[in-house]
Amino acid sequence: MKYAEMTAVELKNLSREETLIVLPIAAVEQHGPHMPTGTDEIICTAVAEKVEECLQEKLVLLPTLWLGASQHHLRWGATLTSRVENYETLLCEICESLLNDGFRRVMILNGHGGNIAPMQISLRRLQVDFPNCQLLAASYWSIAEAEIASVMDGDCKTVGHACEAETSLIMHLRPELVRTTKIDNFDDYASDLVDGVYICRDMFQRTSAGATGRPDLASAEKGAKMFSLIVKRVSAVIRKLSGEPLSNYP
Amino acid sequence: MKYAEMTAVELKNLSREETLIVLPIAAVEQHGPHMPTGTDEIICTAVAEKVEECLQEKLVLLPTLWLGASQHHLRWGATLTSRVENYETLLCEICESLLNDGFRRVMILNGHGGNIAPMQISLRRLQVDFPNCQLLAASYWSIAEAEIASVMDGDCKTVGHACEAETSLIMHLRPELVRTTKIDNFDDYASDLVDGVYICRDMFQRTSAGATGRPDLASAEKGAKMFSLIVKRVSAVIRKLSGEPLSNYP
Amino acid sequence: MKYAEMTAVELKNLSREETLIVLPIAAVEQHGPHMPTGTDEIICTAVAEKVEECLQEKLVLLPTLWLGASQHHLRWGATLTSRVENYETLLCEICESLLNDGFRRVMILNGHGGNIAPMQISLRRLQVDFPNCQLLAASYWSIAEAEIASVMDGDCKTVGHACEAETSLIMHLRPELVRTTKIDNFDDYASDLVDGVYICRDMFQRTSAGATGRPDLASAEKGAKMFSLIVKRVSAVIRKLSGEPLSNYP
Amino acid sequence: MKYAEMTAVELKNLSREETLIVLPIAAVEQHGPHMPTGTDEIICTAVAEKVEECLQEKLVLLPTLWLGASQHHLRWGATLTSRVENYETLLCEICESLLNDGFRRVMILNGHGGNIAPMQISLRRLQVDFPNCQLLAASYWSIAEAEIASVMDGDCKTVGHACEAETSLIMHLRPELVRTTKIDNFDDYASDLVDGVYICRDMFQRTSAGATGRPDLASAEKGAKMFSLIVKRVSAVIRKLSGEPLSNYP
Amino acid sequence: MKYAEMTAVELKNLSREETLIVLPIAAVEQHGPHMPTGTDEIICTAVAEKVEECLQEKLVLLPTLWLGASQHHLRWGATLTSRVENYETLLCEICESLLNDGFRRVMILNGHGGNIAPMQISLRRLQVDFPNCQLLAASYWSIAEAEIASVMDGDCKTVGHACEAETSLIMHLRPELVRTTKIDNFDDYASDLVDGVYICRDMFQRTSAGATGRPDLASAEKGAKMFSLIVKRVSAVIRKLSGEPLSNYP
Amino acid sequence: MKYAEMTAVELKNLSREETLIVLPIAAVEQHGPHMPTGTDEIICTAVAEKVEECLQEKLVLLPTLWLGASQHHLRWGATLTSRVENYETLLCEICESLLNDGFRRVMILNGHGGNIAPMQISLRRLQVDFPNCQLLAASYWSIAEAEIASVMDGDCKTVGHACEAETSLIMHLRPELVRTTKIDNFDDYASDLVDGVYICRDMFQRTSAGATGRPDLASAEKGAKMFSLIVKRVSAVIRKLSGEPLSNYP
Repeated sequence: MKYAEMTAVELKNLSREETLIVLPIAAVEQHGPHMPTGTDEIICTAVAEKVEECLQEKLVLLPTLWLGASQHHLRWGATLTSRVENYETLLCEICESLLNDGFRRVMILNGHGGNIAPMQISLRRLQVDFPNCQLLAASYWSIAEAEIASVMDGDCKTVGHACEAETSLIMHLRPELVRTTKIDNFDDYASDLVDGVYICRDMFQRTSAGATGRPDLASAEKGAKMFSLIVKRVSAVIRKLSGEPLSNYP
Repeated sequence: MKYAEMTAVELKNLSREETLIVLPIAAVEQHGPHMPTGTDEIICTAVAEKVEECLQEKLVLLPTLWLGASQHHLRWGATLTSRVENYETLLCEICESLLNDGFRRVMILNGHGGNIAPMQISLRRLQVDFPNCQLLAASYWSIAEAEIASVMDGDCKTVGHACEAETSLIMHLRPELVRTTKIDNFDDYASDLVDGVYICRDMFQRTSAGATGRPDLASAEKGAKMFSLIVKRVSAVIRKLSGEPLSNYP
Repeated sequence: MKYAEMTAVELKNLSREETLIVLPIAAVEQHGPHMPTGTDEIICTAVAEKVEECLQEKLVLLPTLWLGASQHHLRWGATLTSRVENYETLLCEICESLLNDGFRRVMILNGHGGNIAPMQISLRRLQVDFPNCQLLAASYWSIAEAEIASVMDGDCKTVGHACEAETSLIMHLRPELVRTTKIDNFDDYASDLVDGVYICRDMFQRTSAGATGRPDLASAEKGAKMFSLIVKRVSAVIRKLSGEPLSNYP
Repeated sequence: MKYAEMTAVELKNLSREETLIVLPIAAVEQHGPHMPTGTDEIICTAVAEKVEECLQEKLVLLPTLWLGASQHHLRWGATLTSRVENYETLLCEICESLLNDGFRRVMILNGHGGNIAPMQISLRRLQVDFPNCQLLAASYWSIAEAEIASVMDGDCKTVGHACEAETSLIMHLRPELVRTTKIDNFDDYASDLVDGVYICRDMFQRTSAGATGRPDLASAEKGAKMFSLIVKRVSAVIRKLSGEPLSNYP
Repeated sequence: MKYAEMTAVELKNLSREETLIVLPIAAVEQHGPHMPTGTDEIICTAVAEKVEECLQEKLVLLPTLWLGASQHHLRWGATLTSRVENYETLLCEICESLLNDGFRRVMILNGHGGNIAPMQISLRRLQVDFPNCQLLAASYWSIAEAEIASVMDGDCKTVGHACEAETSLIMHLRPELVRTTKIDNFDDYASDLVDGVYICRDMFQRTSAGATGRPDLASAEKGAKMFSLIVKRVSAVIRKLSGEPLSNYP
Repeated sequence: MKYAEMTAVELKNLSREETLIVLPIAAVEQHGPHMPTGTDEIICTAVAEKVEECLQEKLVLLPTLWLGASQHHLRWGATLTSRVENYETLLCEICESLLNDGFRRVMILNGHGGNIAPMQISLRRLQVDFPNCQLLAASYWSIAEAEIASVMDGDCKTVGHACEAETSLIMHLRPELVRTTKIDNFDDYASDLVDGVYICRDMFQRTSAGATGRPDLASAEKGAKMFSLIVKRVSAVIRKLSGEPLSNYP
């Protein structure tokens, strides 16, 4: 079920205890020389919509919040962002609209690395006022970590930025948007975690061209396989979580 | 051109003086018994995308911010919203991302009545820091007021809420989303402007069912005609404004 | 009745259901070469006090908040202002003082164009917490639009800035404060609404001297007539609104 | 000189180095059973205007900000207030308007006890950005402490709330606003400073009727004498401070 | 009793009516050429811990919040600070943690002059929500004013900054931290209160070396005597206040 | 070197390029039935001070900010906290004091799980304004993950809350503060990460007694060994990071 396609009456009739509302969040930001700025939004929406198809009776999908917390991309240009503290507030307010309407299960489904900390903090801020609700947040890649890794050929087995995984996924979902002649090996990026220490650097410092990993190893076939595995895994996990009794969360 | 489909390099190559960036904003909120909560988002996006087709060389379209300032609908349920003061900040931040990236012409194209005051205030907040930029905001109906009126049959000739105009437009754009059996005459709504005085009431007070006007007079044909007139007029006005020399705005 | 002249006991004894409290708001800002910076405050206070005389039993008048949302005048100098978002908060807090004290009817009576959007937003912010109260806002010119137009000779029939109307009113109310030798025809100002589009420009961009319209057509006689018509009309509208049963606003 | 009576051009022509701008601040709040809620505003404005008469060539007087930080009176009703943290911001913004316009000397002249801490904090917040400006704040009673004490007959020699001093001053300035039959001995109030410890209690806890001290000892003659002494002393101190070279404040 | 050394169960078992929780606050900021930046923190903690020893059964001591409101020292460098408005919020939040946990008596014990106004404002902000609690704040020198004066030899008998009193106290408490060769007569400082007027200047303007008074008159003996007197007096005052019935503060 | 023990002049003389300033942050919050509320503060301070001893010439240690982001412990009582969004601001302000003073290397050393997300966000907020500085953050356990695991006997090899690790460390550092009779097996806690999904629950939901893991396996010897390994590893990592050329972080 899609929230934006339903009437107020239809939404009112949904069970507040059983319905899980999913808010996809992403980003529109520079994605290196070969990928569109909407990469995260395209992938996250595609995953979310496919998952919604699989779980219709359990899940109500909101439209994707394309804006992300992307200040660390600003120096590359071509990036839309909210200040990270205001992004937290924004997520809180969307979720509060639902929680004040009585819904007891809300999940943020994320497609942009920069959103992870703020989305978790948003839920912490909400939890103080809504202690009896199921408040969930995940990036699609944290749920489908093993599945994604199983398809990757490069050394890095996780989703980076305009990398092997994202490039493959866009090649599958919107092939016309990949500038294939600009693809390169961007494996020279600096991690933000060294010896257990978080080194706060923006993407201008961490990458030579605004991208990471091995998009040169990407393919539409790989993207198709990965997409299918992600959807299957995310659907399974959400089905399980949304079936857990709320009484587990007193 | 669509911002989210372009790469950072392509966006960087655009003229900062000549390019107009358009941010469509809407709402996802209750729309009476017969209309989907995404009504404003659907209409505003459709108008914006059609205008973008007409003005390709001049305009870069952002994805639609579906979230609106909709607190006045909350008591009807089925409404997602930001606090109005935070909504102003949100609009400022998206525009600042563009203005700090050097773009000199930004326009907010609105599809939700509750956004009018906050979007204007957002531009006022931005104007202090970006006095030399062209900062524009309009609802599609304020640009195409005469054209819309020319198609309406009910007494009310302007766009209300889930009214003759909106219902016709959705009948044209997404007919499967209109619950035609729930359509009624909702002409019993209270205005928020009486004798020149703004009476601040929410939609729970102003309407009997969350809708206004005469959706019973709506038709897909009317919607098609209206849509075509709106797109034509909005395109013409934007073409004219984006062609005006920036030196007109010292 | 004037709030500031009453004791706490007397205020406590007023009916919370029937009493309308009026908060006049204005601005102290540059008003072109010929008018005092206090123009809006002088006019708004004079109107409010005269209206209070007419409606004594119904109305409690607060002192005028002379500060306005005037950032768009700052580049002309001689302007006191609050940031527009803080101005909203300021209005909310004054009204909250009254609403938390039990009063059910509050009206903001405005004398400065820049306050219109923030005062409306203030009421929207308040309405969420005080849904059962009568929350009103108007500029004196929006109530007495026809009356004002009937007295104007210039092409522009509405109240602008240091224009025919304001200059006439100050010539009537405080003639010694008008620098008549500096009066000119300022009809070369740019509107902020073109083809239905709000063009956000400050007064430094919109005017050549910080003033608009035809103050050269102003006269004390015109001011006297206009003032009398405004007071009569505003009094009549307030009398009507304050007499409406609160049950009309559930 | 009165700011609100001057034109922008006249204000522009003032010396930024030599002119001292004075902002009177007060409160509109309950003042016990016998005094009008506007007491502080009336006294502070009267002092400020008389001082302005004495120091015309040196001083530009703003209109009085009647709103104060008065949350500690709320439980008595009949009180208008801003939250204390927002009141600080409000004072900052008014002063910033002046300091950004180039004025180098600003003084807040206060007539309400609850404003003392926030006005000092406002100046501290401003001082970070305007280190080379003369930023002054005083309550009229802190300048004229000895003069006021010399006229008082009760044990308490300082200005309290609706006390001997304030009642005398209003008897002198606006005798018709004092409800003489309600005057009593209110000397049973609790101090907020005991043994060097600040005990934070509101006026509902500190007084039996919202007033302090010995208004039963008040008289118009005493008020006249006190007023004259206050004006003389405040004028002398301001003349001295405004004459000090700015270079003393590097 | 020390809060940080107790378990949750032990804290839960304390009487909410009788227990006084004390929060020491200080600063880490430049202290002239001869004193460590931690001066205020060292003194305030020493006083607080000694007082806690004397009043064990009555008092629960929090660890010292070493951060202060020290923006007025920033231009000297070597200063850690919060913006003054955020410092107020910080104090509110710590106290709210206690008040929401049911404790009815809270005291801020201060060791830094710049904290006085913000700590008082914090309590005013809290008092609105916790009107039935005992909310206290004091600097150790305001409680022990006479005792401190009795030991001082310089003209200034109060605690300044890196002055005779503070230097003596650190000579007593942490002698190895005083750079005795850098000690000088710093009696050339400018007061921030002149003729009853608060002159807002930072320490860069008010002092020639970031210190005030007569540290050249300091001695460890003087410090020992002063410390003992302070502890005795503060203990006595707190004992008295914490013994007062809460019903005194309705 | 300890910041609070140094004078302003000594701090001024430090190399801005080479000096690393370390801010330890912790929490004072409920720690189950057997551990003091100050557990995190005690451990983090002990680690930081020992590391400082090892790295004297390279590192300046600030005093520990004992306050943490601990709202998720509030329902257990005995917890001091800041709202998580304000905690971010607090960390920003302390670091800004240093960065504005010219220091180019700042590290937050954390001892409380709830601080991880806010401390990372603080650095992201700072990075926008200080892109050329080394901004580091780590929990002691993330640096010494392997070392800690090597000492643990329970199934859980990481630092939880009042668990095997923390209990052992306090048994080593402050044995008198452990209530050994209250120690139990608390291995029945719920994780906040399930199948890659963050489930936002507070400690009242996640634990049966406010503690996690196997404190029944704790011992002072284990604590001593663990402490020594932690200090060694943290010292080594900090030495390495602080030696890296700043030019690595353009």
